[in-house]
Amino acid sequence: MRGLTRRLVRVVELIERKRDGGTLTTEEIDYLVQGYTKGDIPDYQLSAFLMAVVWRGMDAKETAALTASMVASGERLDLSRFGRVVDKHSTGGVGDKTTLVVAPLVAACGLPVAKMSGRGLGFSGGTLDKLESFAGYRVDLTTAEFLAQLERIGIVVTGQTKDLAPADGLLYALRDATGTVPAIPLIASSIMSKKIAAGAHAVVLDVKVGSGAFMKDLASARALARAMVAIGVAHGLAVTCELTDMDQPLGRAVGNALEVAEAIETLRGRGPADLVRLARLAGAEMLVRGRKARDARTALARIDRALADGSGLAKLRELVAAQGGDARAVDDPRHLPHAPLVERLVAPRTAFVGAIAADRVGQASVRLGAGRERKGDPIDLRTGVVLHAKVGDRVERGQPYAEVHVAGRPDDESAIDQIRAAFRWSARRVAPRRLILGRIASR
Amino acid sequence: MRGLTRRLVRVVELIERKRDGGTLTTEEIDYLVQGYTKGDIPDYQLSAFLMAVVWRGMDAKETAALTASMVASGERLDLSRFGRVVDKHSTGGVGDKTTLVVAPLVAACGLPVAKMSGRGLGFSGGTLDKLESFAGYRVDLTTAEFLAQLERIGIVVTGQTKDLAPADGLLYALRDATGTVPAIPLIASSIMSKKIAAGAHAVVLDVKVGSGAFMKDLASARALARAMVAIGVAHGLAVTCELTDMDQPLGRAVGNALEVAEAIETLRGRGPADLVRLARLAGAEMLVRGRKARDARTALARIDRALADGSGLAKLRELVAAQGGDARAVDDPRHLPHAPLVERLVAPRTAFVGAIAADRVGQASVRLGAGRERKGDPIDLRTGVVLHAKVGDRVERGQPYAEVHVAGRPDDESAIDQIRAAFRWSARRVAPRRLILGRIASR
Repeated sequence: MRGLTRRLVRVVELIERKRDGGTLTTEEIDYLVQGYTKGDIPDYQLSAFLMAVVWRGMDAKETAALTASMVASGERLDLSRFGRVVDKHSTGGVGDKTTLVVAPLVAACGLPVAKMSGRGLGFSGGTLDKLESFAGYRVDLTTAEFLAQLERIGIVVTGQTKDLAPADGLLYALRDATGTVPAIPLIASSIMSKKIAAGAHAVVLDVKVGSGAFMKDLASARALARAMVAIGVAHGLAVTCELTDMDQPLGRAVGNALEVAEAIETLRGRGPADLVRLARLAGAEMLVRGRKARDARTALARIDRALADGSGLAKLRELVAAQGGDARAVDDPRHLPHAPLVERLVAPRTAFVGAIAADRVGQASVRLGAGRERKGDPIDLRTGVVLHAKVGDRVERGQPYAEVHVAGRPDDESAIDQIRAAFRWSARRVAPRRLILGRIASR
Repeated sequence: MRGLTRRLVRVVELIERKRDGGTLTTEEIDYLVQGYTKGDIPDYQLSAFLMAVVWRGMDAKETAALTASMVASGERLDLSRFGRVVDKHSTGGVGDKTTLVVAPLVAACGLPVAKMSGRGLGFSGGTLDKLESFAGYRVDLTTAEFLAQLERIGIVVTGQTKDLAPADGLLYALRDATGTVPAIPLIASSIMSKKIAAGAHAVVLDVKVGSGAFMKDLASARALARAMVAIGVAHGLAVTCELTDMDQPLGRAVGNALEVAEAIETLRGRGPADLVRLARLAGAEMLVRGRKARDARTALARIDRALADGSGLAKLRELVAAQGGDARAVDDPRHLPHAPLVERLVAPRTAFVGAIAADRVGQASVRLGAGRERKGDPIDLRTGVVLHAKVGDRVERGQPYAEVHVAGRPDDESAIDQIRAAFRWSARRVAPRRLILGRIASR
């Protein structure tokens, strides 16, 4: 690194400017991103720059420029022949299987769903892992397969292809290795670049807030939501961000096959209240953004019809079959993977559930094998937790409040202890938690 | 970088802790430094860590640990057979040729001087470059040559060997390329690790403050001084830091051969007041720290004798000859390199010098060829500036206030303009600048 070239010196100047709290132009940000993607700018300079961004932030213009540059680093799908395409994204939480419910519902309502999802990491689950509970389900469709399936059945849920926003993948790997993940402009641009590159015309985002989410408080969740809406507006996309509670797990099931089973039950009209509410809200918003309904009331009625008449469930069956999965599992849960052992946790005395620490439940599910600590780790689709009580519920002495699905791993006992410790009990009545905490949207 | 190894994950945790404002243990810091030096920890992780240190700082214990780890990365000279060895270091400034005066003076007083110096960078000159004005002077002595010369004539001034604190060299190169230079714990540990590895028992430091120094204000200079004294104390070294003015250049000459000529004049007893004062102060402190004088008054008297009786000048002659340089230049400046052209700047009207922006003079001297913008650039030993007036001096209309020694380079005109612009004039009397701004020292 002695005798810096002109290029490296220019990069140092950009790092220094950000370090000292200044802003970079669109061209300068593009220079960094494209230079790094091409291998012209070394990772040790980029990682120092990223830490300076964690420290100093980026303004809306810089964040939009970063997003545009990541989009420009690869292919951009043109889905306009399918009409308006609306994507859906959650920032991730514990037990968040909303996509598995919403995607078939809105597809059943005639809105094309072209979704690229991710895998789980840490306490946050991933849609791809969950879908693999359907034996044989493929998450590695080519772009041609992706488009053909969208054409044929109006729904596709697969992994992100490497050709879309490759700079995002490279930058994310570097952030992961350098403690530079938690910066709102970096998170927002990473999410939005993939949505834009994947051809979305509108995005409905669910920003989770609470112990089981990346954003621990409403203020930072709002900041992230504002950043994503601003990026969308700068790129001509309509964006809606719902801010929703992730202080307790969503629904009752946490763990891959368990969540799939719950999603199926929800599509049958028997879902837990919070999941149903969130799925209806997101689904209706997608229909409005996709101009399949003229207002929220009409949209909700259409979603409710797809729930009631089984067309949502039928669409899930179609999706699973189209991607090579065992669709029998949609109708018969015995075709989903099952853990060999189920341990029930029973209430030592009658009490109200005061809190369920979502982070602890999520960490416990990782210990049970249902999640991965690091990228590339294998996971166990069978294991997890089903909560029989949520915050505000009263549990009688001797009644089960949770069941833990275990595979017989060395850490099972400590995971079960952690789930037990996640519950806080109260002798007095406790109000249920508010689920919808706010909404930030473009026009 | 996908699928982080355990080692990389551990490094991420350390980066995150520093990023979030926490502290690292001595073992953790050593793990980072040794891991990086051995190549086990990649530079992209270290650079993110360094940026987090620029942001969050390091406490005294962490800074001492970083220093110790850099010392432990290589050899440590044992100079105890020479008695107490006192090193001298300046954080660098414009026209700072103090070492060229002080080293021969204290060596003439019987204190062994074993000095490893650096090259200039940016507006800050380097002792090695200046010494190369003596044709043939070698700055690449081996450790054996270094020790043999110290034994024989009691003075040696050469470049740092690669075996001392190699981690510091590696880290510095990375900092230089990643905008992570300006952090007090990093600066302090870099300086002190080299002094400790080079076998010093005490260090007399000159922390420059002002536009022509790295530290622009007294508060940060004090913080750096305190950090260095604390490191010294943690390692059993006596440390004195003088805080001195670098808002105008030191002495009159700026530029390598010009500064050597001024240092020689100073050793003849004809130096400019500020340089003489600083050299006497640093020299006396070195004698006290080296226990060659029982107090400051006695030490000053000995320094003054070495100035008056020519023994300091004789020691410089000996030094230059011992390291293969043309010692005739000590007695006859015609043997020093000379620029082909000298341009005089004359006062357009009678006025007092209100300020001389040291940074501008320094940048101008780089343009004239006397300094380098980047490591490894060649320099011109002949060029530079001689100031005929300093702050507070009155200059009559038509009288010269500076002369610029130029080599006929394309940037000469703009350099001369920059020197002109460095002077601020006042119709009213201006007080001379205070030279000594403070002192922070161990017991």
